[in-house]
Amino acid sequence: MEERLRKIKWIMLDVDGTLTDGGIQVSNSGEYTKKFHVRDGFGIVEAKKEGLKFAIITGRQTEIIRIRLQEELKIDEVHQGVKNKLEVLGMLKKRHQIATDEILYMGDDVNDLAVLGYVGILACPHNSVQEIIEVSDIKAEAIGGEGAVREIIEKVMKAQGKWENVIKRYRP
Amino acid sequence: MEERLRKIKWIMLDVDGTLTDGGIQVSNSGEYTKKFHVRDGFGIVEAKKEGLKFAIITGRQTEIIRIRLQEELKIDEVHQGVKNKLEVLGMLKKRHQIATDEILYMGDDVNDLAVLGYVGILACPHNSVQEIIEVSDIKAEAIGGEGAVREIIEKVMKAQGKWENVIKRYRP
Amino acid sequence: MEERLRKIKWIMLDVDGTLTDGGIQVSNSGEYTKKFHVRDGFGIVEAKKEGLKFAIITGRQTEIIRIRLQEELKIDEVHQGVKNKLEVLGMLKKRHQIATDEILYMGDDVNDLAVLGYVGILACPHNSVQEIIEVSDIKAEAIGGEGAVREIIEKVMKAQGKWENVIKRYRP
Amino acid sequence: MEERLRKIKWIMLDVDGTLTDGGIQVSNSGEYTKKFHVRDGFGIVEAKKEGLKFAIITGRQTEIIRIRLQEELKIDEVHQGVKNKLEVLGMLKKRHQIATDEILYMGDDVNDLAVLGYVGILACPHNSVQEIIEVSDIKAEAIGGEGAVREIIEKVMKAQGKWENVIKRYRP
Repeated sequence: MEERLRKIKWIMLDVDGTLTDGGIQVSNSGEYTKKFHVRDGFGIVEAKKEGLKFAIITGRQTEIIRIRLQEELKIDEVHQGVKNKLEVLGMLKKRHQIATDEILYMGDDVNDLAVLGYVGILACPHNSVQEIIEVSDIKAEAIGGEGAVREIIEKVMKAQGKWENVIKRYRP
Repeated sequence: MEERLRKIKWIMLDVDGTLTDGGIQVSNSGEYTKKFHVRDGFGIVEAKKEGLKFAIITGRQTEIIRIRLQEELKIDEVHQGVKNKLEVLGMLKKRHQIATDEILYMGDDVNDLAVLGYVGILACPHNSVQEIIEVSDIKAEAIGGEGAVREIIEKVMKAQGKWENVIKRYRP
Repeated sequence: MEERLRKIKWIMLDVDGTLTDGGIQVSNSGEYTKKFHVRDGFGIVEAKKEGLKFAIITGRQTEIIRIRLQEELKIDEVHQGVKNKLEVLGMLKKRHQIATDEILYMGDDVNDLAVLGYVGILACPHNSVQEIIEVSDIKAEAIGGEGAVREIIEKVMKAQGKWENVIKRYRP
Repeated sequence: MEERLRKIKWIMLDVDGTLTDGGIQVSNSGEYTKKFHVRDGFGIVEAKKEGLKFAIITGRQTEIIRIRLQEELKIDEVHQGVKNKLEVLGMLKKRHQIATDEILYMGDDVNDLAVLGYVGILACPHNSVQEIIEVSDIKAEAIGGEGAVREIIEKVMKAQGKWENVIKRYRP
């Protein structure tokens, strides 16, 4: 696993249930709200400083994702409203010339099964559906929206000797 | 139970505490917010593709339900502000010619007791009130708003051999 | 305890940490949000039908409480921004001619200690501060905002033979 | 530890994950929301009455903090968008002539490591990252956003004989 983690260049993420707790808050004026976690965001920002690339592939479509993930966290590739995750994955591989074993994908539900066999590592939050847990290479200790993504980012960065750079940035 | 699950054509749902965690968020400008779960929504959408029908019967009245459950998830029958759940159930049975044993109803509180004996299967989230748990045919492992509805939908679809179609859609 | 519960005519409640989980959500446009639970609300509405009276005595001041507790749940006496809870308690006793042993008070923090000795029963949510737990007559199984108030209302109504009326309303 | 707690004059706090649960709620209209806890706020207000001083040092920048922490809780020093927490700490020490052992700092993530060795006591919420837990002097029983800050404030005030004054205010 350490060796496989060392090869990862792109981390591709599902949103609901992975970067969030799966909750969809709806108000009586039609406002939608999702809950992200600051630690996931911190992990993404620090990983990007160390050269890792990120993509979002999600079946839903909402301004929330553009605001939090594209504008604020400046994720490299954000794809929403995706019917076929495998199709977008294929396009990204071509566009950026990414090899299969350079991709870690993280998702929590059966629609994430689409990428199985087409990524180097499949990871999932602790509270994923059974079908995903069974085929995942790594199940995080944390649940979605409470640091599951951060945990996986750290695993990749530690295997690649990059996490110590983060520590040094804050503790010179 | 497998046999009873196979007969289900309609899944009828309470909202607060069943499709949500029971939380009612209120803001100082009078905005109300409820928290749904993406997995319940996914389950409903996939079940509808396989021909299952859904109804909402809830005692409260709010735009939230119209937005999330009627507009977005396109639930077939949405009834809000219901004083007498049994009355609406009776009307739906007539309107769609539904037999008692074709209905699974899921709710979490004592006002859901009204339908007992008039539906084929009574299901409830894990954290329902004691009076409902005692008379339910199925108690979900998940609590309300964290996938309890999805869990019950899967049970129905697995008994009817329809869940594998969902998997195949994402993993051909 | 059963005998003491039978005497209760008024249920007086703290808000934050008792009717809510203690969370105060603040948005960047200055919107404040609190999270109530539908089961507490249901309990209050049903208890009022059976003649129980409710009062809110809270140290904070916000439109949220007016909207949810005064307008929607129609609580009899709502007192916000209270510096001295004992003073308001005294005024309510006089205004409505309430005897000490006719009052159940529920709160979760040290400012609720003020009423100790001036109410018939002191109750608290499961996750109250230690100082309150030590002097409470009843500690709920549920935590604040997840049905602690409903639990106490049911205890009062069961002791008074009123809870069965609620059941009968939904299950004639 | 009791002796070290007695020396504390300033309590300096991180925000996300310490005063909140780390959640960042984002809506489709671009509204951001954070969830604070009423007990932390109560603790801060009471501690200020007893002469303790508070500072916020946070890496993020948002109106939420100005509204809740500066305007409402009237925290003495609020510093947002801080790249280098040690720099701000140094400036505060000079401005208010604070000795190292008069400062308790509480944070939950690796960017809080910056202050290690420059404050008298380093505290952290129960669910902090491993790197912080390993070097902290005190790990709270409570998690961030559910009273971790209140717990630490009480420890300081009890060591200084000030907590009993709070009790007396509400229970004369």
